[in-house]
Order: sequence, then structure tokens, then C-alpha cells
Amino acid sequence: MKIAILPGDGIGTEIVAEAVKVLNVLDLPFEMETALVGGAAYEAHGHPLPDSTLNLAKAADAVLFGAVGDWKYDKLERSLRPEQAILGLRKNLGLFANFRPAICYEQLTHASSLKPELVAGLDILIIRELTGDIYFGQPRGRRIAVDGHFPGAEEAFDTMRYSRPEIERIAHVAFKAARLRDKRVTSVDKANVLETFQLWKDVVTEVGKEYPDVALDHMYVDNAAMQLVKAPKKFDVMVTGNMFGDILSDAAAMLTGSIGMLPSASLNANNQGLYEPSHGSAPDIAGQGIANPLATILSAAMMLRYSLNQAQAADRIESAVSAVLSAGYRTVDIASEGTTRVGTREMGDAVVAAL
Amino acid sequence: MKIAILPGDGIGTEIVAEAVKVLNVLDLPFEMETALVGGAAYEAHGHPLPDSTLNLAKAADAVLFGAVGDWKYDKLERSLRPEQAILGLRKNLGLFANFRPAICYEQLTHASSLKPELVAGLDILIIRELTGDIYFGQPRGRRIAVDGHFPGAEEAFDTMRYSRPEIERIAHVAFKAARLRDKRVTSVDKANVLETFQLWKDVVTEVGKEYPDVALDHMYVDNAAMQLVKAPKKFDVMVTGNMFGDILSDAAAMLTGSIGMLPSASLNANNQGLYEPSHGSAPDIAGQGIANPLATILSAAMMLRYSLNQAQAADRIESAVSAVLSAGYRTVDIASEGTTRVGTREMGDAVVAAL
Ligand SMILES: CC(C)[C@H](C(=O)O)[C@@H](O)C(=O)O
Ligand SMILES: CC(C)[C@H](C(=O)O)[C@@H](O)C(=O)O
Repeated sequence: MKIAILPGDGIGTEIVAEAVKVLNVLDLPFEMETALVGGAAYEAHGHPLPDSTLNLAKAADAVLFGAVGDWKYDKLERSLRPEQAILGLRKNLGLFANFRPAICYEQLTHASSLKPELVAGLDILIIRELTGDIYFGQPRGRRIAVDGHFPGAEEAFDTMRYSRPEIERIAHVAFKAARLRDKRVTSVDKANVLETFQLWKDVVTEVGKEYPDVALDHMYVDNAAMQLVKAPKKFDVMVTGNMFGDILSDAAAMLTGSIGMLPSASLNANNQGLYEPSHGSAPDIAGQGIANPLATILSAAMMLRYSLNQAQAADRIESAVSAVLSAGYRTVDIASEGTTRVGTREMGDAVVAAL
Repeated sequence: MKIAILPGDGIGTEIVAEAVKVLNVLDLPFEMETALVGGAAYEAHGHPLPDSTLNLAKAADAVLFGAVGDWKYDKLERSLRPEQAILGLRKNLGLFANFRPAICYEQLTHASSLKPELVAGLDILIIRELTGDIYFGQPRGRRIAVDGHFPGAEEAFDTMRYSRPEIERIAHVAFKAARLRDKRVTSVDKANVLETFQLWKDVVTEVGKEYPDVALDHMYVDNAAMQLVKAPKKFDVMVTGNMFGDILSDAAAMLTGSIGMLPSASLNANNQGLYEPSHGSAPDIAGQGIANPLATILSAAMMLRYSLNQAQAADRIESAVSAVLSAGYRTVDIASEGTTRVGTREMGDAVVAAL
């Protein structure tokens, strides 16, 4: 079981170290190799995703990823900015299926900005298509407009696109995931305005016929954003495109109040996957030893389950995290009165102890 | 002062009737003419935006719009569906500047799904560009893919685009609006991924230099969705493109807990405008006399202020609405214990009485 360890920037190094510590306790035959990515790789090699890092990731069964990005790279040209590393990994590894759970842990219900009764027990799975849509669609660029409101003016443009098989495969992922849960899929589109999402809706509907045991409904993206705020518990599995998924999955994660707890998985057709916390690189608190490592530790659990076929070890980690929360250990982002404040390393140690 | 009255579908007729009642009390020289739009126009004329309706709107100083749409038109081809009427009006009248306030009325703080301290006193103004972006960008359609992940497969595509002058004019609108408020603009983009929104960010930054008294910051759309959920009161004016604005303005409206209270304005370069409630046609409660007319009444107030140059009359309506809330009148959507439950018509009467 080959794992590429890519800590990245900001708090990335600190939180990934704790996840590695947890993996090491499991006594499974992992081969781990570490490489630079993002701003750290740019500093060392002049590129956020050097070939050596990409090749390591390609050769691995799974990638454990920390986070990338820092304000200090904002002035670089886009192709050299840290975020390009994550886009490059998604594209080159074909990681089309992004799993973003939005779970509200019983012990952390109070941390949500929503009223407790609206989020207690919340458990949504957002499935975001990750290699298509306007993120990668060609053509794109700048040019002089030949039509539109201001012909002759400078304009910039991007292309949104989805093909039938791209939609089919992510729809299958969503329906299969729903079968292991509450058997309900909400497909989010903007079919009333976009050609791309009319095809999306048509194809998801067709694929849904193969899953008569799963209830399918369709929702416009603006309405989905409203319903997430109003009554998030109504959702089970939500499936959508890359751009809408970017927005909705972050909104849903923040609704839980504990984004520092939320893992994610990005898989390709062979179940090779990249696993990373849902939160970012938080350069403002990097190096202080206070970041919450649990989202990364839970990402390692997802890795065991989805890419490494070690469901039992994944269960053990998840139970250990739950035990640590119940014991009252909290990093600053999820702290509340009457709990025990710990740093990044102590939180990792607590999970190891619980294992 | 010519006003085109377009009630539309669902609760549209009921709520617009109350706004007209309120306008009539003001004793100002309005010329009002009513026309069908949306599903109602389709039933009568075979098109959701018949020429006669469009011409009436074009000739008016302002359009007071109810709402359009009903599930029963879902099977129609897209160009005949009710929503096309609103897109057609925006495009044909050049209504590029959409003002969507998200205000949490003191008397209704409890109605929000957010904790009261997070929304008490909330007052955000979202300015959404309304005639560009992927909503109207050409080319768009279906075709056989020649490249991408599945060459040879059927695909659908749309074009996101913004030209420099389109961004400039909406940026000016935002900075000017901020000058009348807390003098802060947050421009929402996805410049880390999209060419269109890199130009957006560049141009907004340039325009911002002409407003040194207004603070400008930039935020990625996914982060904006998170910050809206986490700490909405941090925002003053938010300016963004058509697609992101569609999602964020609805999310922000729902955060207030009283979307039935929220008006909107869509203006062109000559301050000709379309005014409509932020909520939809609610076919499920149409004809029951229970819909909240206040968003439409407040839209009429915006119309007086922005298109008809009657700021004083606008103030009077807004004060009347506030008085009615303080007196405890509530339609079902905003009802709570200890308040007086009223229907659509009684709520309109209460505003008239307060005037
Ligand atoms: C960093 C950025 C390119 C990325 C995205 O937009 O996909 C991030 O927001 C995410 O969701 O993983
Ligand atoms: C009905 C629809 C086309 C419209 C839009 O997407 O703009 C609506 O959601 C809105 O925000 O006014």
C-alpha cells in the first residue's frame, strides 16, 4: 500500500504529521513517501507541482494531502500559484469523484452558526464532479469581443461543458453512495438557464432509472443554497458539477460549525484517491501548533476505506476520533466551556492513545 | 410616471394587488397598466413574454413584477417556460444592475435559522450583474465533443464571459452604493480558476482607485459562501457576477429568515427598473390569501426611490412597513408566538392604514 504524503503549505505540515502518526500505529504495511507541493514546491523547484511530486502521486495507491496556499504567492502568475497543484493533481490523476461529507458531530453541535435543532445529527454527503465543468473547459482566455454588449472591448471568457459519459459516471457514484445511506439523491443544476445543466439533469434522470430503490430529486443551485441554510437535514446525498459543488460543499461544511473536522476524498475510476481536509492552509496560524488535525486524520480514515480496502482500520480511526471528542479534547477552533484545550500534537496523541 | 404592472403567476397576482393598493394611497400621478407575463402569458398568448408585454415594459419608467413559474410548465421546451420572461425583460431592457438587500428586521430576528446574535441588525446589499456572464454568453448548445475527457461523446456547453466595460459599470454601481452605506465593497470572484473572474478582479480593482474613500476587498466565491454562513454581518456591499450573484443573494436572503420581506431592484443605465420580491411564485400557496405582500410593497418603495425619484414616498412606505411589524402583524411565513396572524389583504390594509 503505497501512500504519497504531500503536506503542502501553512498548517499542512503540522496536521499531516499527526495523520501519519495515526497511520503508523495501525501496524499495516504502508510504504509512505513524502514530497513537496504548492508554495513549498514552488520555493524549492520553481513549480507548485513538480514532475517528481506528480510522478510520486501517480505511482501511489493514495495521496494524503495537507493544504496549499499563502497570501504571499498572490502576485505570482496563475500557473505558478499553489492552487494549481491541486488542480493539476485532480486532472492528471483523473480524480473525478469528490466526496465531501458535511457532518455535525453530536459533541460539537453548539459550534454551528445555525440553531442547534437545525444541525443536530446533520449528515450530508456532497458528491462534486471534479475534473470537468468550467474548471477545465477549453477554450478560455482573453480576447476582443466581436459581439455581446460591447463589441470591440477586451473580454475574458471560459467554457462550461459536460459530456454525457462524464455525467453518467458521477451519477453512478452518487446513486451507489446513496444506497449505503438513506437512499436519496438530490441532483443540483441550473437547467432553467444553462445548456450544460439541462444535459446534466437529463442524464442524471436516465441513470436514476437503474436505481429504482434510490429516490431522486432535482433542485436549482440557488434554491439548494437556500435549502442548505434553511433545513440542511433534509438532504442525504447531493450530487452536482465542479463549480456549484465548490460553493455548496463549502457552505455546507461551514454550516456544521466545525470545518476543522471535515475530511474529503477525490477518487478516480480505479479508486486511486487523494485525501485532504476540507479546510485550507490557514497561513495565519501556521507553525503555532494549534491547528486541528482531525479533518486530516479522518481523511486518512477515508483513504483506508476507499483506496486501500481497509475498512476496519478506517472504523477504528473514526471511533478513536469520536472517543477523543467525547473525552472533551478540543483544539481552539472547536473549543467550548468545560472542555480540555489541546494543541495539534496533543490531539494527535489523544487519537493514538484512543486507538 | 408610467408603471407597467406584471403580476405573473402563483401568488404574483395577490401580492402585486397589495403593492398597487399601497401605491394608490400615495396620491401621486402614476399611470399604471397591467399585462400578463410568465405562465399566465403563455396560457393566453403562447409565449411567456409576448411582444405586447415587452413593449409595455419598455415604454414604462418602471416595471412592478410579481413572480413567475409553476411546476406545470416544467415539461415545456425551455424557450417557452415562465422564467424566460424574466430573462427576456432583463436582456431587452438592459437591466444590468441588480440590487438585492439582505436585511434582518429587528422584529424578525428569531425567524432566521442562524443564532440571533449572528443576524441581529444584518444589513447587506448584494449587487449582482444581471445581463452578462454565463446567463447570456454565446456560443452555447449541444454538440459532439472533439476533445476533453470523452471525444466523440455528446456534450453540452455554455460560455462565461465578461467584457471590461460590463465590469466597469457594475463596479461603479457598487462603489456608489457603498458611499451611501458603510463604504465597504467585497468583490466576489473565482480568479484562482476562471479567466473571466481574473479580469473581473483586475477591473474592479482599477475602478476602486476612483473611490479612495471606499474600502475594497476580494473574496473567492466558495469562501464568500462560507463567510455568509459564519459571520454575515461582516459584509456591507457585495458585488459579483450573474451566476455567483444568483447563488449568494439567495443564500443571504434565506439567512435573514424572512425572505418574504426582501425586495429587489434591477436597473439599466437610465435608471429604468424592474422591481420584484426576492421570493418566487410559490404555486403551492397561490390563491389562499396567505402570501406575504411586504417584499412586493418594499419593492414598490425601491421603485419610487430608484426609478421615479420619489425618495420621500419610498421612506413613507418603508416606515409604514416597519410600523406594521412593530404592531405585531404577521403573515404565516414570519409568524411567531404573541403576534397577530394576518392574510395577504389584511397585511396590505395594515400598511395602507399606517400610511
Ligand atoms: C483551491 C481551489 C482551486 C479549489 C477549487 O476551487 O476547487 C478549492 O476551493 C477546493 O474546493 O478544493
Ligand atoms: C428564474 C431564474 C432564471 C432567475 C435567475 O437565475 O436569475 C432567478 O433565480 C432569479 O434569481 O431571479
